[in-house]
Amino acid sequence: MRLRHKPWALDYMKEQASIYIADPATLKGNWAEEFKNEHPLYIEVGSGKGAFITGMAKQHPDINFIAIELFESVAVAIVQKLVEEPLPNVRVLTVDAKDLRDFFEKGEVTRVYLNFSDPWPKSRHAKRRLTYKTFLATYEDILPEQGQIHFKTDNRKLFESSLMTMSAYGMTFDWMSLDLHVNEPEDNVRTEYEERFSALGQPIYRMEATYGK
Amino acid sequence: MRLRHKPWALDYMKEQASIYIADPATLKGNWAEEFKNEHPLYIEVGSGKGAFITGMAKQHPDINFIAIELFESVAVAIVQKLVEEPLPNVRVLTVDAKDLRDFFEKGEVTRVYLNFSDPWPKSRHAKRRLTYKTFLATYEDILPEQGQIHFKTDNRKLFESSLMTMSAYGMTFDWMSLDLHVNEPEDNVRTEYEERFSALGQPIYRMEATYGK
Repeated sequence: MRLRHKPWALDYMKEQASIYIADPATLKGNWAEEFKNEHPLYIEVGSGKGAFITGMAKQHPDINFIAIELFESVAVAIVQKLVEEPLPNVRVLTVDAKDLRDFFEKGEVTRVYLNFSDPWPKSRHAKRRLTYKTFLATYEDILPEQGQIHFKTDNRKLFESSLMTMSAYGMTFDWMSLDLHVNEPEDNVRTEYEERFSALGQPIYRMEATYGK
Repeated sequence: MRLRHKPWALDYMKEQASIYIADPATLKGNWAEEFKNEHPLYIEVGSGKGAFITGMAKQHPDINFIAIELFESVAVAIVQKLVEEPLPNVRVLTVDAKDLRDFFEKGEVTRVYLNFSDPWPKSRHAKRRLTYKTFLATYEDILPEQGQIHFKTDNRKLFESSLMTMSAYGMTFDWMSLDLHVNEPEDNVRTEYEERFSALGQPIYRMEATYGK
């Protein structure tokens, strides 16, 4: 994603304290209190401009959603969307995926979504891919037993490497499509990228993977 | 594959006793004797007309190969190829994949190849797919610890279901391509189907999967 620096983004987000959580470590173990309910909590790691998470939040009002987007200049677009159209079941964080254990207790997150993650195509950058084993260990530490990752991407090489790292980690694939938009599931919420790449006729890959057997 | 009945096929093959093994149960545990060497033994389950296995056998003279093709009318084409161009490291069997334990000891087979297997697209036929869990258990019983299956197909749904059944079985994917003919490996031996489907521009899927981690 092309990044345009927006020096005003952080101050703008901080003013929206019901949407943007500036200090999420203080809520570790207390997200139910923040949302004022005991609904399941789904997080998306790498939310971009938030088309997926806001679409999901509208479709599933009985689920809590947290959008995680490292770049403030990008995350601000999600906050702006939520200012225009408030959704009580969404919060936005600008934190690094490697630090997720600082913000969530074991089992506090019900499901992790990864959508069109940065492919980091060079071998020497493999460790930065969000499906690298260290990240899989991080998600495992905030998910319940048999927790799930739902992952989609247009990037063939990222999907191939994810099939390998996730199977080596002992995960089981419960759902799989190597061309999502052929028989697209009715409840599929498209991301901004997904709309763009599908229009080019490229296949979209999608899986649901569970920790353990 | 379209089957044309060839009533002469079995008699023809039986005359080629150095190629076609009519009673393979008698060789269980004794394949090294049959090949007169201790080379690794690779089997292909569902060999069709044998383009893959004869190509591989030429490329790897220090490996023994067994082509397994249930249909005599199809297997006869492999035997005919081998009559025309003898390869001392290939044998042909017409047996059912579910009976492999009757013909090979645990660890006697070093690697199993599945190429463009029948996709059995209907859910009620899932058990007939060669990557269904009962077949995975059969291969495991003739392979060594950490044995491998090498599998390629043009059939998206078969590959998707195989990723699911094999991960659920605890297998690890060590090599993966979701579009094999982009950067085709130099040593890839194409099957008859592969030539045909690649010409249509459809992706070929390929994986190497290991039992255990």
